[in-house]
Amino acid sequence: MLEELKEKVFQANLELPKRDLIKYTWGNVSQVDRESGLFVIKPSGVDYDVMTADDMVVCDFDGNVVEGNLRPSSDMPTHAVLYKTYPEIGGIVHTHSPWAASWAQSGLDVPAMGTTHADTFYGTVPCARFLSKEELDAGYEHETGNVIVETFTKRGLDPVAVPGILLQGHGPFTWGKDADDAVMHAVVLEEVCRMNAITRFLNPFAPELPQYVLDKHYLRKHGKNAYYGQK
Amino acid sequence: MLEELKEKVFQANLELPKRDLIKYTWGNVSQVDRESGLFVIKPSGVDYDVMTADDMVVCDFDGNVVEGNLRPSSDMPTHAVLYKTYPEIGGIVHTHSPWAASWAQSGLDVPAMGTTHADTFYGTVPCARFLSKEELDAGYEHETGNVIVETFTKRGLDPVAVPGILLQGHGPFTWGKDADDAVMHAVVLEEVCRMNAITRFLNPFAPELPQYVLDKHYLRKHGKNAYYGQK
Amino acid sequence: MLEELKEKVFQANLELPKRDLIKYTWGNVSQVDRESGLFVIKPSGVDYDVMTADDMVVCDFDGNVVEGNLRPSSDMPTHAVLYKTYPEIGGIVHTHSPWAASWAQSGLDVPAMGTTHADTFYGTVPCARFLSKEELDAGYEHETGNVIVETFTKRGLDPVAVPGILLQGHGPFTWGKDADDAVMHAVVLEEVCRMNAITRFLNPFAPELPQYVLDKHYLRKHGKNAYYGQK
Amino acid sequence: MLEELKEKVFQANLELPKRDLIKYTWGNVSQVDRESGLFVIKPSGVDYDVMTADDMVVCDFDGNVVEGNLRPSSDMPTHAVLYKTYPEIGGIVHTHSPWAASWAQSGLDVPAMGTTHADTFYGTVPCARFLSKEELDAGYEHETGNVIVETFTKRGLDPVAVPGILLQGHGPFTWGKDADDAVMHAVVLEEVCRMNAITRFLNPFAPELPQYVLDKHYLRKHGKNAYYGQK
Repeated sequence: MLEELKEKVFQANLELPKRDLIKYTWGNVSQVDRESGLFVIKPSGVDYDVMTADDMVVCDFDGNVVEGNLRPSSDMPTHAVLYKTYPEIGGIVHTHSPWAASWAQSGLDVPAMGTTHADTFYGTVPCARFLSKEELDAGYEHETGNVIVETFTKRGLDPVAVPGILLQGHGPFTWGKDADDAVMHAVVLEEVCRMNAITRFLNPFAPELPQYVLDKHYLRKHGKNAYYGQK
Repeated sequence: MLEELKEKVFQANLELPKRDLIKYTWGNVSQVDRESGLFVIKPSGVDYDVMTADDMVVCDFDGNVVEGNLRPSSDMPTHAVLYKTYPEIGGIVHTHSPWAASWAQSGLDVPAMGTTHADTFYGTVPCARFLSKEELDAGYEHETGNVIVETFTKRGLDPVAVPGILLQGHGPFTWGKDADDAVMHAVVLEEVCRMNAITRFLNPFAPELPQYVLDKHYLRKHGKNAYYGQK
Repeated sequence: MLEELKEKVFQANLELPKRDLIKYTWGNVSQVDRESGLFVIKPSGVDYDVMTADDMVVCDFDGNVVEGNLRPSSDMPTHAVLYKTYPEIGGIVHTHSPWAASWAQSGLDVPAMGTTHADTFYGTVPCARFLSKEELDAGYEHETGNVIVETFTKRGLDPVAVPGILLQGHGPFTWGKDADDAVMHAVVLEEVCRMNAITRFLNPFAPELPQYVLDKHYLRKHGKNAYYGQK
Repeated sequence: MLEELKEKVFQANLELPKRDLIKYTWGNVSQVDRESGLFVIKPSGVDYDVMTADDMVVCDFDGNVVEGNLRPSSDMPTHAVLYKTYPEIGGIVHTHSPWAASWAQSGLDVPAMGTTHADTFYGTVPCARFLSKEELDAGYEHETGNVIVETFTKRGLDPVAVPGILLQGHGPFTWGKDADDAVMHAVVLEEVCRMNAITRFLNPFAPELPQYVLDKHYLRKHGKNAYYGQK
């Protein structure tokens, strides 16, 4: 079932340690198959050294396991909420990458301070609030998905234009058109968090990018007038 | 004698440079055999390039060498005190990993500021006080073990729930159910010290994790209701 | 056409990820052929894994593509302005290397605080202002070249003595006698930005290098009285 | 001439990039032959990729080249002064390693804040003053040696107990019983500078190591009562 997708998701998970985004099993990547309404995700706590494509787990948007011999990532219900809510999302990544996790711990949004940011994220990357005790007791991972959606809705953000978020006290989630794209966004967010931190240490009064520069950089890579890359 | 354990301890020691926790011979790993009341530890100051499993040294809980051609790690008496005091400990690691050593030099406890911390350490990781001159003269490495025990006793901490400590002006000790587990805890502590440092630089008022989030993350990985991983 | 130069530019581009200056395709290197008045530059957004020397694009100083099946780097017009304005420049590099990009985001010049700086850059490396909206609309990449030239002219700087600049909110451009030289200057600028940042964090009152030490270090490596190296 | 020593010095120079202490050719290692009163040093500005043991240069304590087809490191006269002044020194290293160079740029001494420091350096590592213009004009590299000696003399420091120094605005020099030992001290100094910087960022009031802990750690590795290692 979805064998090709399992291989793709498996390979995308291997990118996480290779790109220095995780240690041990501290991350997970999934990708959706919109036709069947199912997504494939990494199993929970399996060593990357012994993990195979066959170990990937197939789930539906209500967080049920549809196929797989292993338990899915404990964060699976968060992925399910995002796929269910946002039909425009194809792949999702969660990591504890150090600079992004540090921003998440600081409870601060990541402002757009440079073109490295603007090339991928069209404006501030938000930091979502802590869950309340009631929400956490109601279902931690599922409610984490809901608080991501709440944050984007309340702030009027488009998840395609801002393909990532920080969860306070936890770490980043990113997404994209497929698993590979979501991994690339996780790399960019980690690098942007590093650059913005150093920028603030150097100059606490460093400005955000002017809106017209943000527009220019985002739109030269995205949308119908893009002219970066080969098509 | 204990040949299998020697191999295991040897391999766990090799993890230290591989995981960027040490330079040269600045660290040591041991594991206990509870049946015989003995533990196996790295020899002192032997290059990792030429060290073999046979070089491992067997010691008892009073800090005597029972077997081995080489001197044990100079920190061996600290390991002996911990094994003697805490029957629930199976493996011990000491390093000078840079972020944890910097926290140790700062003399500050490591608060639980994120879920990376909460997944492994159930609350603050304490920083033990300096030895007094009298304690140091009485037996530096043995008294270091005693000050670790004192810190856990005075603060009412469970060494299973908080499997590590910083020694002021020195560096971290971590432990676990075996040598591999203790190494993993050393990696986590180093990463947590890095993240918490950056968090504080970004936002000196960053909060600690709410207690119910700490509970949730620790208990989804530990104890009878854990649901992380495959068993 | 210019096959040898394409190979040279291709190899110089490969240095960028190897020297940890870029992730993915976030950088570009070019080199000029002064005889023909043409330069060779990396194509836009092509993976380094699949890129070949044949993919390099030949352009003229007015920013026209003269040969090539692929689009040139989107920053190509900036290179064209610099080659046209400065006949003494042979190669150009642009990256988003993290420490230099952080300085660029901070909007601060990079002062000469040490001999690592003085060995390559004869004084402060300037940070160019943001483009105005009007300039940006008139042609972002071309005007970026103009603002580099403006900065050097207004400050009376010699681009041979100070072979690099930061663009506010963006990142560094460096140049040199050829592509390899420009890459080396990109490595030096990244390292200097790292050192100067840490220096300022340690001691906000750290002085700049005395002028006579700056002179000594720069001139023992450059000019007719140089005595560093083998000729 | 001194072929074995050339091989040893060559290998020790290769350690510098391997240990991440230098980029390109920014460093040099030498070792002395006390019997002949000569020392062997790296040539100036030769790529590590093409350098061979035969390229090493033999010099005397007055800074004359005795044998070699290539120019010696431009810092050679500094080495000569140190060998001439301190008969107890066998090998010398100079680098621009980033954390040590940043401390050097900050103009601050490196206090003994932890046991990583105390295991190798018996107290504060001094930062030498800038040369005056007159000294610099009289012979930059030779006078740099003199200012190192002046610093140790004025402060009453023993170069065996404190095997290194920072040169303000420049970087570290370390030494030891031979070239390998001096390289190890360069690695330790870089790591200590990193740890102490992070410590100060975390806690500007972090104390220095108590004198009796400094004594204990230094003396368990050095001197006639040492008990670290295998002899």
